[in-house]
Amino acid sequence: MLVRATDDGERFVLTDPTAMPRAAGFLWNRQMMMQVNCRGFAVARFMQPEPARYTHAPNLEAATFMQPEQPYYAHHPGRFCYVKDEESGEIFSAPHEPVRAKPDRFEFSVGASDIRWTVECLGVRVEMEVGLAADAAVELWRIRVSNPSGRSRRLGVYPYVPIGYMSWMNQSARYRPDLGGVVASSVTPYQKVEDWSRQRGFKDRTCLLHDREPVAFETSREAFEGEGGLHAPDGVRQALLGCGEALHETPAAVLQYRIALAPGQAEEFRFLLAPERDDAGIAGLRERYLDGAGFARARDQYAAYIARGRGVLRIETPDRHLDRFANRWLPRQVYYHGDANRLTTDPQTRNYLQDHMGMCYIAPEAAREAFLRALSQQEPSGAMPDGILLAEGAELKYINQIPHTDHCVWLPVCLRAYLDETGEHGILDARIQDGAGETLTVFERICRAMRWLLAARDARGLSYIGQGDWCDPMNMVGHRGKGVSGWLSVAAAHALGLWGDVCERHGRDDLAAEFRAGVADLNSAVNAHLWDGEWYARGITDDGVAFGVANDAEGRIYLNPQSWAILAGTADARRRTLMIAAVERQLETPYGAMMLAPAYTGMREDVGRLTQKFPGTAENGSVYNHAAAFYVHALYAAGESARAWRVLRGMLCGPDDADYRQRGQLPVFIPNYYRGAWREHPRTAGRSSQLFNTGTAAWMYRILIEDLFGLKGAPEGLRVTPQLPPEWPQARAERLFRGARFDVRYARRTGATAIEVRVDGEPLDGDCIGGIRPGRDYRVDVRLPPA
Amino acid sequence: MLVRATDDGERFVLTDPTAMPRAAGFLWNRQMMMQVNCRGFAVARFMQPEPARYTHAPNLEAATFMQPEQPYYAHHPGRFCYVKDEESGEIFSAPHEPVRAKPDRFEFSVGASDIRWTVECLGVRVEMEVGLAADAAVELWRIRVSNPSGRSRRLGVYPYVPIGYMSWMNQSARYRPDLGGVVASSVTPYQKVEDWSRQRGFKDRTCLLHDREPVAFETSREAFEGEGGLHAPDGVRQALLGCGEALHETPAAVLQYRIALAPGQAEEFRFLLAPERDDAGIAGLRERYLDGAGFARARDQYAAYIARGRGVLRIETPDRHLDRFANRWLPRQVYYHGDANRLTTDPQTRNYLQDHMGMCYIAPEAAREAFLRALSQQEPSGAMPDGILLAEGAELKYINQIPHTDHCVWLPVCLRAYLDETGEHGILDARIQDGAGETLTVFERICRAMRWLLAARDARGLSYIGQGDWCDPMNMVGHRGKGVSGWLSVAAAHALGLWGDVCERHGRDDLAAEFRAGVADLNSAVNAHLWDGEWYARGITDDGVAFGVANDAEGRIYLNPQSWAILAGTADARRRTLMIAAVERQLETPYGAMMLAPAYTGMREDVGRLTQKFPGTAENGSVYNHAAAFYVHALYAAGESARAWRVLRGMLCGPDDADYRQRGQLPVFIPNYYRGAWREHPRTAGRSSQLFNTGTAAWMYRILIEDLFGLKGAPEGLRVTPQLPPEWPQARAERLFRGARFDVRYARRTGATAIEVRVDGEPLDGDCIGGIRPGRDYRVDVRLPPA
Repeated sequence: MLVRATDDGERFVLTDPTAMPRAAGFLWNRQMMMQVNCRGFAVARFMQPEPARYTHAPNLEAATFMQPEQPYYAHHPGRFCYVKDEESGEIFSAPHEPVRAKPDRFEFSVGASDIRWTVECLGVRVEMEVGLAADAAVELWRIRVSNPSGRSRRLGVYPYVPIGYMSWMNQSARYRPDLGGVVASSVTPYQKVEDWSRQRGFKDRTCLLHDREPVAFETSREAFEGEGGLHAPDGVRQALLGCGEALHETPAAVLQYRIALAPGQAEEFRFLLAPERDDAGIAGLRERYLDGAGFARARDQYAAYIARGRGVLRIETPDRHLDRFANRWLPRQVYYHGDANRLTTDPQTRNYLQDHMGMCYIAPEAAREAFLRALSQQEPSGAMPDGILLAEGAELKYINQIPHTDHCVWLPVCLRAYLDETGEHGILDARIQDGAGETLTVFERICRAMRWLLAARDARGLSYIGQGDWCDPMNMVGHRGKGVSGWLSVAAAHALGLWGDVCERHGRDDLAAEFRAGVADLNSAVNAHLWDGEWYARGITDDGVAFGVANDAEGRIYLNPQSWAILAGTADARRRTLMIAAVERQLETPYGAMMLAPAYTGMREDVGRLTQKFPGTAENGSVYNHAAAFYVHALYAAGESARAWRVLRGMLCGPDDADYRQRGQLPVFIPNYYRGAWREHPRTAGRSSQLFNTGTAAWMYRILIEDLFGLKGAPEGLRVTPQLPPEWPQARAERLFRGARFDVRYARRTGATAIEVRVDGEPLDGDCIGGIRPGRDYRVDVRLPPA
Repeated sequence: MLVRATDDGERFVLTDPTAMPRAAGFLWNRQMMMQVNCRGFAVARFMQPEPARYTHAPNLEAATFMQPEQPYYAHHPGRFCYVKDEESGEIFSAPHEPVRAKPDRFEFSVGASDIRWTVECLGVRVEMEVGLAADAAVELWRIRVSNPSGRSRRLGVYPYVPIGYMSWMNQSARYRPDLGGVVASSVTPYQKVEDWSRQRGFKDRTCLLHDREPVAFETSREAFEGEGGLHAPDGVRQALLGCGEALHETPAAVLQYRIALAPGQAEEFRFLLAPERDDAGIAGLRERYLDGAGFARARDQYAAYIARGRGVLRIETPDRHLDRFANRWLPRQVYYHGDANRLTTDPQTRNYLQDHMGMCYIAPEAAREAFLRALSQQEPSGAMPDGILLAEGAELKYINQIPHTDHCVWLPVCLRAYLDETGEHGILDARIQDGAGETLTVFERICRAMRWLLAARDARGLSYIGQGDWCDPMNMVGHRGKGVSGWLSVAAAHALGLWGDVCERHGRDDLAAEFRAGVADLNSAVNAHLWDGEWYARGITDDGVAFGVANDAEGRIYLNPQSWAILAGTADARRRTLMIAAVERQLETPYGAMMLAPAYTGMREDVGRLTQKFPGTAENGSVYNHAAAFYVHALYAAGESARAWRVLRGMLCGPDDADYRQRGQLPVFIPNYYRGAWREHPRTAGRSSQLFNTGTAAWMYRILIEDLFGLKGAPEGLRVTPQLPPEWPQARAERLFRGARFDVRYARRTGATAIEVRVDGEPLDGDCIGGIRPGRDYRVDVRLPPA
């Protein structure tokens, strides 16, 4: 079997590096992120305060946002260990690159707080393990070389980190016996005086420190590689590495050890790879992590850090694969987003709010703080900025420089999750000063945002799209100020409806009525102008052309307007049925529902950027999981639980080998998309983007908790409204909620016609468990009708 | 012998790809540039209108200026041809990468208008040749495979172009039987609406077209490479390529041919590699170049284009190496700069002016146009902008966004060469309108520029440095508005002096007096405040700290202030002698004179950016050839001809193998720098930057013509004032000048005490040949005293 999961759900193991060459795990803390794949290639970034690299490409790589479908190539950054049989001269490398020797045994094993490999080749076993420090940009590596061959061995062991092209201005590397490792130095290029003050404190050195002195070393990539190439480097083929300096030559860190192993014997090496500012900092790293017990302590601390992201749900279902994902990997991914803010200093506002919607289930106090921070950057008009600045001197970059019109929508959508989960309505009265000096409460600010949404509409009552809204950033639809968005119109209606409920509970019936009138107005405008016969159009351009409609050859139907029209109550039952059938027919795939179909194959100048993406990737006809999750959420809202489960299950990777191969990913995160264009490009459909930055994680977690297992907070307590898959006869969930623990057992019973709930043996009146006492354990039995 | 030159000076040949792995040639036309090295790696750019790539790195590469010391790596763009022995299965690749098989014979042969290889391996000979179209971004390739093995052979031939990571937005590749080749498509990412209008016409496709149908093909890099890796690709090892499509996978163009060769037999293939916009454009390329005689015609046209850059000097000296460089390669490089403007749309003003100073000797009408264009962008204050915009919509980029204070200096320096060479003083009366709508003559504009230089000085009379001046852009010396530049002060003096002479000839004695008074004033200020005992300081910071002085541990002495103090007449004889001795002691190396010494090893915050470069590279203690050329020019001005020749000869690459190896470059261009820090880093000292963009070319050409061979224009005619190296007993030069041809024979004669010149047998009175008649041939005999 290609992919195994450990029984306790703690790890995923891949046993063939060639079957899924991109399969990867990721580790992070607030200072750094590292995605490392089964073959040893790695992408790592750390914050200073903008994301920076400490191992580099072999050329001058562009500074950019995290890319989906990251390309790998021979000299891509990675972490490797060459092994040479000193008798025969044969070599291989662990994990797999750069030599690519066929291993006798291979295991790539991804855990929550470490990533490990076991590679056997030439009768030598190499075990590698990497973890991070809990609170610093430090990689901690262990390499264990053992001898299962039954005969004595003499081996050369060569840990190798290609440090890459650090800087055109200044780069070098030297072995530093005083610091115990290779130190590569560089200077981030600066040209403007003002850049210097920003850059002068940069950690421009990369060090590979060891706990055992090597017999030789090399610090220049070219000198190491020679004519042999990375797959058979001269450095490894000759007796001793050249012990050279890299003088503005591409730096690499290679250490050489010589060991003799009796049968069954092993030797272990520990290394630390990190960016640092200067010698003193490097010496500090050695002292903290490599001398004495620091290495083991750091592992424990990092495991403890990761454990803080365990979340509020533990399940046992007939679907072991779902169990593992929901119990271990999904909350971990949600935690990553919320605690590390995707390793950016200017998260898109909608991402930031939704990531912290996810944090409501992990660390609600962090979510609270994030909501307040976001609102402190609200504009006087009520509009929200395109990104939330998190660091001193941060600025809006990349797509955040393009104005988008949807950010206000996410305020009530996400805050509602916080209120439901925590019951802490005091947040509504928290007072926040904005950049212009005005102080308002959270409640007042969100009311202002809702009024901004109501105002940003045309004479028909439809929401302007401007240069773009969420998830399908089409920037020529409405840049002249006339085009409207079908999705944003129904999304605004949904947001206003949610906020109307909050207003009512907050004792403001007047405002509730105002916003509910807005909902009705939006819904009737959408029904009047955007219903296309079987589904809702995506929008109308500046020139009055509706798109996402039946007579479009490409981009004929979009998922988001349908999902949100269900959530907003826009569609009546007849329209809802038609829409859902159209989505099933045109957008569903074995990997979830596509965001639109058919994918655009070329530029449509009145629609813009989206149409330029490759068909089936990113938003252009991919299974854009974030949007697919909304569809699932809407289906549950419509009571379409079987259909919802089908789409949701498609979005989960696995559990059979053919599926893993096709997606090319281990199910340790949900990616931002799977390739779509299912009909046009079946070879690549389903392929994972490998990018774990996605609002999908928060929504999928919320959906599992609140929709599928139906364990959703309400002002009065915990509502129990499950919508289990028809094929499950029973299931169990542990739900942590407001300090209490609920042990929930679901079972289908013949004869039952409605859901019956017992709490500690007593039948529950209604669906809400009230009067919850923190610290208490509750036993909840849920009887379900047969499927 | 590692490097050979052909007897006629037409080509340089390298016979070992491992001895000088970076050795490269370059080809260009106005639309594109291509630097291709002996092993097959290539850097190519074309204009649309900004420089763009059509073969890409394997990752998202930064957009940047042309980098010195270009890094290569396995997946770097290149042009290759795999060959497989169909009987034994053995493979190699021509030229050398990616397989790196040891060749039985190797020749990398660089000519003026083509680059060729001959590689023999496994008893197969592969000849490759590349040229360009004269007026389009098109590479034209010929591959000839022959069989010198004496037995019949069955071979697989696989031309391979890694097209690389074209775009994160959209990339694909397909074999197109209708177009006859592989077409890779992409979309340049755009996010802002305004980007689209700029990008919509981009040539985002890359096509490899063939003249013979292959038996199979591959278009995905990963599919081609498989587990074998680039050095042993699965695609080549299996029987047939997979004939796959690249669907948002990294594109590559691989074609497979199968040939059977009797002993001595050969087969030839022709290919075209080019960026294009659409199918129609690609079909047009095929029609124009691949069907019929177009291929051969294009070769001829390109050779004719290159031949237009032959220049005005042909020499025969005892130094065959100098002959080849001066007759063939140097004017070609000067022509490249002037005709293609370094493939940029915003050349730095100082570069643009100096490049066109070089064009005065190649195509003076182009130089004239360039000077007028530059002056049309003069600011109302008289200041010159940091870059000259050449294309619609061009903008100042990179270093051109940092204000520099020296641009005005280059106007008289460069215009003077034009006046001397052409005698066309009418340019001074040409009227030019600037961006503000003001119309002035060239003469008036340069006077205004000179007054700007005089005004931009402090109370001591020294020139402000601001954020930087030429060649050693130190941006913290004077950014607060107080720091001054020693070099700029003497450079301004030199410029004013040159311009004073022009004013006088132009009948404006009043202005001549004004500017000459400025010269005196500047010189006395420099002598009063910047003389440091044995040389001139480089400047004084905002805080009043002189630098480039004897008590600086790093950056103790700078070359430029000394050179220009000689040119400007700042230094008296005693000081000049001291300076020259100091330069000899501290700055001279076997590769020319370093720009400063000792190189900075770390940041000195009151000096700035320069100090952050790696010691010995770029300006930081390198042999910055442009600056070294000025030193040579100054030495000739001072009559120090032996010393000048020593430095100049050091700057020329070759002619012995040890020297070639150390520099790593064929002498087909002069690079912008050789590594310096000769004392600190002897291993890398002398290494070529490989970058052929440099003002050195124009200056070196001017120096050879006017200083060394002493064949310099004057208003009255051609002045003959040679300063031949002492070791030359004789030499000969053909000089084209104002339409006439001068056959000049130099010879040392015992007994001669001064230079004696005969023109057509008649002794010349003075040193100036006047009354030159266009179309005439002159025989000039120059008798020189013994050395």
